[in-house]
Amino acid sequence: MTAIETDEIQRVTVLGCGTLGASWAALFLAHGLDVAAYDPAPGFAARTAAAVEAARAQLAELGLRGAGTLRFHAKLEDALAGADFVQENAPESEAVKRALLAEADRLLPPAILIASSTSAMLRSAIVADCARPERVLVAHPFHPPHLVPLVEIVADGPAVAARACAFYARLGRRPVVLNREMPGHIANRLASALYREAVNLVAEGVASVADIDAALCNGPGLRWAAMGPHMTYHLGGGAGGIRHYLDHLGPSQVRRWASLGNPDLTEDVKDRIVAGIAAEADGRSVEALAARRDAALIAILGARIEVAGEAPNRS
Amino acid sequence: MTAIETDEIQRVTVLGCGTLGASWAALFLAHGLDVAAYDPAPGFAARTAAAVEAARAQLAELGLRGAGTLRFHAKLEDALAGADFVQENAPESEAVKRALLAEADRLLPPAILIASSTSAMLRSAIVADCARPERVLVAHPFHPPHLVPLVEIVADGPAVAARACAFYARLGRRPVVLNREMPGHIANRLASALYREAVNLVAEGVASVADIDAALCNGPGLRWAAMGPHMTYHLGGGAGGIRHYLDHLGPSQVRRWASLGNPDLTEDVKDRIVAGIAAEADGRSVEALAARRDAALIAILGARIEVAGEAPNRS
Repeated sequence: MTAIETDEIQRVTVLGCGTLGASWAALFLAHGLDVAAYDPAPGFAARTAAAVEAARAQLAELGLRGAGTLRFHAKLEDALAGADFVQENAPESEAVKRALLAEADRLLPPAILIASSTSAMLRSAIVADCARPERVLVAHPFHPPHLVPLVEIVADGPAVAARACAFYARLGRRPVVLNREMPGHIANRLASALYREAVNLVAEGVASVADIDAALCNGPGLRWAAMGPHMTYHLGGGAGGIRHYLDHLGPSQVRRWASLGNPDLTEDVKDRIVAGIAAEADGRSVEALAARRDAALIAILGARIEVAGEAPNRS
Repeated sequence: MTAIETDEIQRVTVLGCGTLGASWAALFLAHGLDVAAYDPAPGFAARTAAAVEAARAQLAELGLRGAGTLRFHAKLEDALAGADFVQENAPESEAVKRALLAEADRLLPPAILIASSTSAMLRSAIVADCARPERVLVAHPFHPPHLVPLVEIVADGPAVAARACAFYARLGRRPVVLNREMPGHIANRLASALYREAVNLVAEGVASVADIDAALCNGPGLRWAAMGPHMTYHLGGGAGGIRHYLDHLGPSQVRRWASLGNPDLTEDVKDRIVAGIAAEADGRSVEALAARRDAALIAILGARIEVAGEAPNRS
């Protein structure tokens, strides 16, 4: 097939317009791309338009004010007509995604890439009914995708991965490529590993939920916004770097691993987490907390862009 | 004992002036406190003075320009004379810390708190030779402590913990309190749990070291600079919050936990991490990378201070 060059992409079709789809649409529009949005839910256009507007206002704070056009379609065929790229965000049901991707694959010329935002499923499972699975990939964003730069790519091979990376990089995203598919890709596996210990510390009564949260976002979480875990230990090794670290402190890491917890998520532990969150939230609604998170993310992203050239999101 | 009020603390004695001690000293000075620095190593004053100057320049970028005085002492008794608070940063040797803390305990009036920066040791072990162990606590910072706000407190009881928290909060730190001691406290346990999976992804050949690092600092790491893991899943639960999340997605977390790796840190895995870091560093020295990390941290901290009132480091 003749691949469409990623710098020729002008129209993106967004399949599935929940929170994720609206966020993607806002990002595409803010970079000047046109978006054709499709969702089978009645009345999705008004909800999506409102969510897109809110996200575009946030992107404008980061200086992204591109003026792509947004159109809504109730029929899949209409939404796919003229698409240069497709971002699929259907519910996390294997049956739903398999059917939708197969239908999109059937309707689209072979040069067009179809990217699935799936967080929970493997590429091999969701492309199973596609006639041309090689042009279907996973491109998993991190919530909210119009702000968080990460996109995890699982593709049929390096050529498709490179084309997808070029497209997302053009949108200021930081694509990373998996050499092979893994449940949870990379980032959610790292997050789950950390969360298991965060739950363990609650189960063991070591500290309050609020203090465990504060320990992360004022300690390693803060540092990880600047630099990943391997590089962090490279700097922890001093002049000898990661080799020195692994040779001298590797054994203490391995001992620490052995001491980590493997908690049961019992009703009692869940109750303690819920009570701890109530104390930490201190009356603030989920909406207020999400707005606060987004304000912090926008401020942090702005700061990282300012130190660009040396920008962490290029590392 | 009559406790000294934390707002009366004017002179802090810093015991042990390696990287950590110098960083603490700079923080105290930038908040207008006087510092008496002690280290048994010959010629430590010149090295410490240079490190303190560099850190104070970074603090000045954050608007912290207090003018405390810094004095160097080669004798422990001289350094402790007139101290209102002590921060100990001796090498991570139990014998060294036990002896030093016992000697400081012997020399100081009982109202003075003695805080150890230990990352690896339990409070119960290092206070074993103290006559008044109840005024000796762990106050573990995260590197570099003049920039990263977290301080983990392990104390004999809530009264001492509260006094220490008040002191560190006055310095713009975010103290968290452990209800009981744990190896690695909170933050290094969370970091180790995550690193085990980061090493596993290298061992399993899932992605490059650089892409694993980028996945963290452009995804969950970025978000964790704004909000801790429990609160993140509270927002992930939508309107139903953490209860909805735990009831509906808790089982998939537990399944994910079961799928996480338990890698051996073999010579082969170490070689692959070292090679991966060489590729990621791309010729940049440890010093250059550390300077870049610090610049990013300063920018991020500045951004968080700007969204203050709602500041994440107060959460």
